[in-house]
Amino acid sequence: MTPTELRALIRTVPDFPEPGIQFRDITTLIAHGEGLRAAVGHLAKAAQQSGAEAIAGMEARGFIFGAAVAVELGIGFIPVRKPGKLPVPTIGIDYALEYGTDRLEIDPDAIRPGQRVSIVDDLIATGGTAVAATRLLREIGAEVSSAHFVIDLPDLGGATQLREQGVRVDALIDFEGD
Amino acid sequence: MTPTELRALIRTVPDFPEPGIQFRDITTLIAHGEGLRAAVGHLAKAAQQSGAEAIAGMEARGFIFGAAVAVELGIGFIPVRKPGKLPVPTIGIDYALEYGTDRLEIDPDAIRPGQRVSIVDDLIATGGTAVAATRLLREIGAEVSSAHFVIDLPDLGGATQLREQGVRVDALIDFEGD
Repeated sequence: MTPTELRALIRTVPDFPEPGIQFRDITTLIAHGEGLRAAVGHLAKAAQQSGAEAIAGMEARGFIFGAAVAVELGIGFIPVRKPGKLPVPTIGIDYALEYGTDRLEIDPDAIRPGQRVSIVDDLIATGGTAVAATRLLREIGAEVSSAHFVIDLPDLGGATQLREQGVRVDALIDFEGD
Repeated sequence: MTPTELRALIRTVPDFPEPGIQFRDITTLIAHGEGLRAAVGHLAKAAQQSGAEAIAGMEARGFIFGAAVAVELGIGFIPVRKPGKLPVPTIGIDYALEYGTDRLEIDPDAIRPGQRVSIVDDLIATGGTAVAATRLLREIGAEVSSAHFVIDLPDLGGATQLREQGVRVDALIDFEGD
Protein backbone atom coordinates (compact mmCIF):
# COMPACT_ATOMS: atom_id res chain seq x y z
CA MET A 1 0.00 0.00 0.00
CA THR A 2 1.22 3.48 -0.87
CA PRO A 3 1.30 6.38 1.60
CA THR A 4 -1.76 7.79 -0.17
CA GLU A 5 -3.65 4.56 0.47
CA LEU A 6 -2.45 4.55 4.09
CA ARG A 7 -3.72 8.10 4.51
CA ALA A 8 -7.24 6.89 3.73
CA LEU A 9 -7.01 4.47 6.69
CA ILE A 10 -6.41 7.26 9.22
CA ARG A 11 -9.48 8.46 11.07
CA THR A 12 -9.90 12.14 11.83
CA VAL A 13 -11.69 12.83 15.12
CA PRO A 14 -12.74 16.48 15.54
CA ASP A 15 -12.32 18.31 18.85
CA PHE A 16 -10.07 15.77 20.62
CA PRO A 17 -8.47 16.12 23.09
CA GLU A 18 -9.89 19.64 23.13
CA PRO A 19 -12.15 21.85 20.98
CA GLY A 20 -10.59 22.91 17.69
CA ILE A 21 -8.08 20.06 17.49
CA GLN A 22 -8.43 17.58 14.62
CA PHE A 23 -7.08 14.36 16.09
CA ARG A 24 -5.43 12.10 13.50
CA ASP A 25 -6.12 8.62 14.82
CA ILE A 26 -3.99 5.65 13.79
CA THR A 27 -6.24 3.09 15.55
CA THR A 28 -8.04 2.44 12.26
CA LEU A 29 -4.76 2.10 10.33
CA ILE A 30 -3.25 -0.44 12.72
CA ALA A 31 -6.47 -2.49 12.86
CA HIS A 32 -5.94 -3.05 9.11
CA GLY A 33 -3.44 -5.87 8.68
CA GLU A 34 -2.20 -4.84 5.28
CA GLY A 35 -2.06 -1.18 6.26
CA LEU A 36 -0.11 -1.86 9.45
CA ARG A 37 2.39 -4.05 7.63
CA ALA A 38 2.84 -1.50 4.83
CA ALA A 39 3.36 1.41 7.24
CA VAL A 40 5.97 -0.55 9.17
CA GLY A 41 7.65 -1.56 5.92
CA HIS A 42 7.93 2.05 4.73
CA LEU A 43 9.28 3.21 8.11
CA ALA A 44 11.78 0.35 8.25
CA LYS A 45 13.10 1.13 4.78
CA ALA A 46 13.64 4.77 5.72
CA ALA A 47 15.36 3.85 9.01
CA GLN A 48 17.60 1.37 7.22
CA GLN A 49 18.63 4.04 4.71
CA SER A 50 19.66 6.20 7.68
CA GLY A 51 21.90 3.40 8.94
CA ALA A 52 19.86 2.69 12.08
CA GLU A 53 21.56 0.26 14.48
CA ALA A 54 18.72 0.49 17.01
CA ILE A 55 15.21 1.98 17.11
CA ALA A 56 13.94 4.15 19.95
CA GLY A 57 10.21 4.61 20.52
CA MET A 58 8.31 6.77 22.97
CA GLU A 59 5.62 5.38 25.28
CA ALA A 60 2.97 4.41 24.37
CA ARG A 61 2.01 4.68 20.68
CA GLY A 62 5.67 4.85 19.65
CA PHE A 63 6.02 1.29 20.93
CA ILE A 64 3.52 0.08 18.31
CA PHE A 65 5.48 1.15 15.26
CA GLY A 66 8.96 1.31 16.79
CA ALA A 67 9.25 -2.27 17.97
CA ALA A 68 7.79 -3.63 14.73
CA VAL A 69 10.34 -1.62 12.72
CA ALA A 70 13.15 -2.98 14.89
CA VAL A 71 11.95 -6.55 14.30
CA GLU A 72 11.75 -5.90 10.55
CA LEU A 73 15.37 -4.73 10.55
CA GLY A 74 16.62 -7.32 13.06
CA ILE A 75 17.93 -4.63 15.43
CA GLY A 76 17.19 -3.74 19.05
CA PHE A 77 14.36 -1.58 20.39
CA ILE A 78 14.92 1.04 23.09
CA PRO A 79 11.78 2.09 24.97
CA VAL A 80 11.71 5.75 26.02
CA ARG A 81 9.37 5.58 28.97
CA LYS A 82 7.18 7.64 31.24
CA PRO A 83 8.55 8.16 34.77
CA GLY A 84 8.74 5.26 37.20
CA LYS A 85 8.21 2.46 34.69
CA LEU A 86 11.76 1.18 34.29
CA PRO A 87 13.03 -1.03 37.12
CA VAL A 88 16.64 0.13 36.93
CA PRO A 89 18.36 3.46 37.64
CA THR A 90 17.41 5.70 34.74
CA ILE A 91 18.43 8.95 33.13
CA GLY A 92 15.55 11.32 32.52
CA ILE A 93 14.66 14.63 30.97
CA ASP A 94 11.87 17.06 31.81
CA TYR A 95 10.29 18.97 28.94
CA ALA A 96 7.59 21.57 28.52
CA LEU A 97 4.10 20.80 27.33
CA GLU A 98 1.51 23.39 26.36
CA TYR A 99 0.43 23.33 30.01
CA GLY A 100 2.95 22.05 32.55
CA THR A 101 5.80 19.63 32.01
CA ASP A 102 6.33 15.96 31.32
CA ARG A 103 9.28 13.62 31.74
CA LEU A 104 10.92 10.82 29.74
CA GLU A 105 13.23 8.15 31.14
CA ILE A 106 15.61 5.65 29.61
CA ASP A 107 17.88 2.83 30.76
CA PRO A 108 21.40 4.23 30.19
CA ASP A 109 22.72 0.69 29.59
CA ALA A 110 20.37 0.16 26.66
CA ILE A 111 22.76 1.82 24.20
CA ARG A 112 26.44 1.52 23.54
CA PRO A 113 28.39 4.76 22.96
CA GLY A 114 28.21 5.94 19.36
CA GLN A 115 25.40 3.59 18.41
CA ARG A 116 23.26 4.99 15.57
CA VAL A 117 19.70 5.25 16.82
CA SER A 118 16.60 6.21 14.83
CA ILE A 119 13.44 7.44 16.53
CA VAL A 120 10.12 6.02 15.31
CA ASP A 121 6.73 7.39 16.33
CA ASP A 122 3.22 7.59 14.99
CA LEU A 123 2.98 11.37 14.73
CA ILE A 124 5.01 14.55 15.03
CA ALA A 125 3.12 17.70 15.98
CA THR A 126 4.97 20.40 17.99
CA GLY A 127 7.91 18.02 18.39
CA GLY A 128 8.35 18.52 22.13
CA THR A 129 8.53 14.81 22.91
CA ALA A 130 10.77 13.96 19.95
CA VAL A 131 13.25 16.76 20.72
CA ALA A 132 13.37 15.70 24.38
CA ALA A 133 13.92 12.05 23.39
CA THR A 134 16.73 13.11 21.03
CA ARG A 135 18.48 15.03 23.81
CA LEU A 136 18.09 12.16 26.23
CA LEU A 137 19.43 9.58 23.78
CA ARG A 138 22.41 11.81 23.00
CA GLU A 139 23.05 12.28 26.72
CA ILE A 140 23.63 8.54 27.05
CA GLY A 141 25.95 8.50 24.05
CA ALA A 142 23.70 7.61 21.12
CA GLU A 143 24.13 9.14 17.71
CA VAL A 144 20.55 10.13 16.81
CA SER A 145 20.71 10.21 13.05
CA SER A 146 17.07 10.20 12.00
CA ALA A 147 13.43 10.19 13.06
CA HIS A 148 10.61 8.56 11.14
CA PHE A 149 6.91 9.25 11.61
CA VAL A 150 3.72 7.91 10.10
CA ILE A 151 2.15 11.39 10.24
CA ASP A 152 3.60 14.90 10.19
CA LEU A 153 1.51 17.96 11.03
CA PRO A 154 3.91 20.41 9.38
CA ASP A 155 2.01 23.55 10.44
CA LEU A 156 2.93 22.78 14.06
CA GLY A 157 6.64 22.96 13.28
CA GLY A 158 7.89 19.86 15.08
CA ALA A 159 9.77 18.41 12.12
CA THR A 160 11.56 21.75 11.63
CA GLN A 161 12.54 21.87 15.29
CA LEU A 162 13.89 18.35 15.13
CA ARG A 163 15.88 19.11 11.97
CA GLU A 164 17.43 22.07 13.80
CA GLN A 165 18.83 19.48 16.22
CA GLY A 166 20.62 17.84 13.30
CA VAL A 167 18.17 14.97 12.93
CA ARG A 168 17.03 13.78 9.50
CA VAL A 169 13.21 13.69 9.60
CA ASP A 170 10.66 12.08 7.32
CA ALA A 171 7.01 11.11 7.50
CA LEU A 172 4.80 8.90 5.36
CA ILE A 173 1.85 11.30 5.40
CA ASP A 174 1.40 15.05 5.91
CA PHE A 175 -1.78 16.65 7.17
CA GLU A 176 -1.54 20.36 6.47
CA GLY A 177 -3.89 22.97 7.85
CA ASP A 178 -3.92 21.49 11.36
CA MET B 1 17.32 -18.37 19.35
CA THR B 2 15.57 -20.88 21.58
CA PRO B 3 13.41 -19.95 24.59
CA THR B 4 16.31 -21.04 26.83
CA GLU B 5 18.62 -18.58 25.06
CA LEU B 6 15.96 -15.86 25.32
CA ARG B 7 15.66 -16.51 29.05
CA ALA B 8 19.32 -15.57 29.46
CA LEU B 9 18.56 -12.13 27.93
CA ILE B 10 15.99 -11.27 30.62
CA ARG B 11 17.29 -9.16 33.49
CA THR B 12 16.08 -9.85 37.02
CA VAL B 13 15.81 -6.74 39.18
CA PRO B 14 15.31 -7.50 42.89
CA ASP B 15 12.84 -5.52 45.01
CA PHE B 16 10.99 -3.73 42.20
CA PRO B 17 8.39 -2.27 42.31
CA GLU B 18 8.41 -3.19 46.03
CA PRO B 19 10.56 -5.19 48.46
CA GLY B 20 10.46 -8.94 47.92
CA ILE B 21 9.39 -8.78 44.25
CA GLN B 22 11.82 -10.11 41.65
CA PHE B 23 11.07 -8.00 38.57
CA ARG B 24 11.62 -9.85 35.28
CA ASP B 25 12.72 -7.08 32.92
CA ILE B 26 12.40 -7.49 29.15
CA THR B 27 14.28 -4.23 28.40
CA THR B 28 17.49 -6.21 27.93
CA LEU B 29 15.79 -8.78 25.70
CA ILE B 30 14.26 -6.21 23.36
CA ALA B 31 17.51 -4.23 23.11
CA HIS B 32 19.00 -7.39 21.55
CA GLY B 33 18.03 -7.44 17.86
CA GLU B 34 18.25 -11.17 17.41
CA GLY B 35 16.48 -11.84 20.72
CA LEU B 36 13.62 -9.46 19.94
CA ARG B 37 13.10 -10.97 16.50
CA ALA B 38 13.21 -14.52 17.85
CA ALA B 39 10.73 -13.79 20.66
CA VAL B 40 8.30 -12.19 18.20
CA GLY B 41 8.76 -15.12 15.83
CA HIS B 42 7.90 -17.68 18.53
CA LEU B 43 4.86 -15.67 19.66
CA ALA B 44 3.65 -15.22 16.08
CA LYS B 45 3.89 -18.94 15.35
CA ALA B 46 1.84 -19.75 18.45
CA ALA B 47 -0.79 -17.12 17.60
CA GLN B 48 -1.01 -18.39 14.04
CA GLN B 49 -1.57 -21.95 15.28
CA SER B 50 -4.49 -20.60 17.34
CA GLY B 51 -6.01 -19.12 14.19
CA ALA B 52 -5.56 -15.48 15.22
CA GLU B 53 -7.28 -13.01 12.89
CA ALA B 54 -6.17 -10.02 14.97
CA ILE B 55 -3.81 -9.38 17.89
CA ALA B 56 -4.78 -7.39 20.98
CA GLY B 57 -2.11 -5.87 23.23
CA MET B 58 -2.36 -4.02 26.52
CA GLU B 59 -0.75 -0.61 27.10
CA ALA B 60 2.18 -0.16 27.28
CA ARG B 61 4.59 -3.13 27.11
CA GLY B 62 1.98 -5.25 25.34
CA PHE B 63 2.26 -2.83 22.42
CA ILE B 64 5.92 -3.80 21.93
CA PHE B 65 5.36 -7.48 21.25
CA GLY B 66 1.72 -7.35 20.14
CA ALA B 67 2.10 -5.00 17.20
CA ALA B 68 5.23 -6.77 15.98
CA VAL B 69 3.41 -10.13 16.07
CA ALA B 70 0.52 -8.62 14.10
CA VAL B 71 2.94 -7.31 11.46
CA GLU B 72 4.63 -10.73 11.26
CA LEU B 73 1.25 -12.37 10.59
CA GLY B 74 -0.10 -9.59 8.35
CA ILE B 75 -3.14 -9.06 10.60
CA GLY B 76 -4.48 -6.08 12.52
CA PHE B 77 -3.46 -4.86 15.97
CA ILE B 78 -6.02 -3.77 18.57
CA PRO B 79 -4.63 -1.55 21.35
CA VAL B 80 -6.25 -2.10 24.75
CA ARG B 81 -5.64 1.26 26.37
CA LYS B 82 -5.54 3.07 29.65
CA PRO B 83 -8.47 5.46 30.28
CA GLY B 84 -8.81 8.64 28.24
CA LYS B 85 -6.32 7.77 25.52
CA LEU B 86 -8.63 6.80 22.68
CA PRO B 87 -10.28 9.70 20.85
CA VAL B 88 -13.54 7.89 20.14
CA PRO B 89 -16.37 6.63 22.35
CA THR B 90 -14.97 3.56 24.06
CA ILE B 91 -16.13 0.53 26.00
CA GLY B 92 -14.24 0.00 29.22
CA ILE B 93 -13.87 -2.38 32.11
CA ASP B 94 -12.74 -1.72 35.68
CA TYR B 95 -10.73 -4.43 37.40
CA ALA B 96 -9.15 -4.97 40.79
CA LEU B 97 -5.45 -4.55 41.47
CA GLU B 98 -3.70 -5.58 44.67
CA TYR B 99 -4.45 -2.07 45.93
CA GLY B 100 -7.29 -0.20 44.25
CA THR B 101 -8.63 -0.60 40.73
CA ASP B 102 -7.56 0.09 37.19
CA ARG B 103 -9.43 0.43 33.92
CA LEU B 104 -8.95 -0.69 30.32
CA GLU B 105 -10.65 0.83 27.27
CA ILE B 106 -11.10 -0.23 23.68
CA ASP B 107 -12.57 1.14 20.47
CA PRO B 108 -15.67 -1.04 19.93
CA ASP B 109 -15.37 -0.59 16.15
CA ALA B 110 -11.88 -2.12 16.09
CA ILE B 111 -13.24 -5.67 15.87
CA ARG B 112 -15.90 -7.32 13.74
CA PRO B 113 -18.28 -9.73 15.50
CA GLY B 114 -16.86 -13.24 15.79
CA GLN B 115 -13.32 -12.20 14.85
CA ARG B 116 -10.72 -14.51 16.41
CA VAL B 117 -8.43 -12.39 18.55
CA SER B 118 -5.27 -13.48 20.37
CA ILE B 119 -3.85 -11.48 23.25
CA VAL B 120 -0.09 -10.88 23.31
CA ASP B 121 1.81 -9.46 26.29
CA ASP B 122 5.28 -9.56 27.76
CA LEU B 123 4.36 -11.22 31.06
CA ILE B 124 1.50 -12.89 32.92
CA ALA B 125 1.60 -12.71 36.72
CA THR B 126 -1.71 -12.66 38.61
CA GLY B 127 -3.57 -12.32 35.31
CA GLY B 128 -5.83 -9.45 36.39
CA THR B 129 -5.12 -7.37 33.30
CA ALA B 130 -5.34 -10.28 30.85
CA VAL B 131 -8.64 -11.55 32.29
CA ALA B 132 -10.09 -8.01 32.14
CA ALA B 133 -8.90 -7.59 28.53
CA THR B 134 -10.48 -10.94 27.62
CA ARG B 135 -13.85 -9.90 29.09
CA LEU B 136 -13.70 -6.54 27.34
CA LEU B 137 -12.83 -8.05 23.96
CA ARG B 138 -15.67 -10.56 24.32
CA GLU B 139 -18.07 -7.78 25.27
CA ILE B 140 -17.47 -6.17 21.87
CA GLY B 141 -17.99 -9.49 20.08
CA ALA B 142 -14.49 -10.92 19.71
CA GLU B 143 -13.77 -14.61 20.04
CA VAL B 144 -10.71 -14.61 22.34
CA SER B 145 -9.14 -17.93 21.49
CA SER B 146 -5.64 -17.65 22.92
CA ALA B 147 -3.12 -15.55 24.84
CA HIS B 148 0.63 -15.65 24.31
CA PHE B 149 3.24 -14.31 26.71
CA VAL B 150 7.00 -14.04 26.71
CA ILE B 151 7.12 -14.81 30.45
CA ASP B 152 4.80 -16.71 32.78
CA LEU B 153 5.15 -16.54 36.56
CA PRO B 154 3.13 -19.73 37.18
CA ASP B 155 3.20 -19.46 40.98
CA LEU B 156 1.02 -16.35 40.71
CA GLY B 157 -1.74 -18.28 38.98
CA GLY B 158 -2.61 -15.89 36.15
CA ALA B 159 -2.35 -18.47 33.38
CA THR B 160 -4.66 -20.80 35.30
CA GLN B 161 -7.21 -18.02 35.77
CA LEU B 162 -7.12 -17.18 32.10
CA ARG B 163 -7.56 -20.84 31.10
CA GLU B 164 -10.63 -20.96 33.35
CA GLN B 165 -12.07 -18.29 31.03
CA GLY B 166 -11.66 -20.73 28.12
CA VAL B 167 -8.54 -19.10 26.72
CA ARG B 168 -5.63 -21.20 25.47
CA VAL B 169 -2.48 -19.85 27.16
CA ASP B 170 1.19 -20.34 26.44
CA ALA B 171 4.45 -18.62 27.33
CA LEU B 172 7.98 -18.86 25.98
CA ILE B 173 9.62 -18.83 29.41
CA ASP B 174 8.55 -19.76 32.96
CA PHE B 175 10.07 -18.30 36.10
CA GLU B 176 9.00 -20.46 39.01
CA GLY B 177 9.49 -19.56 42.66
CA ASP B 178 8.32 -15.95 42.23
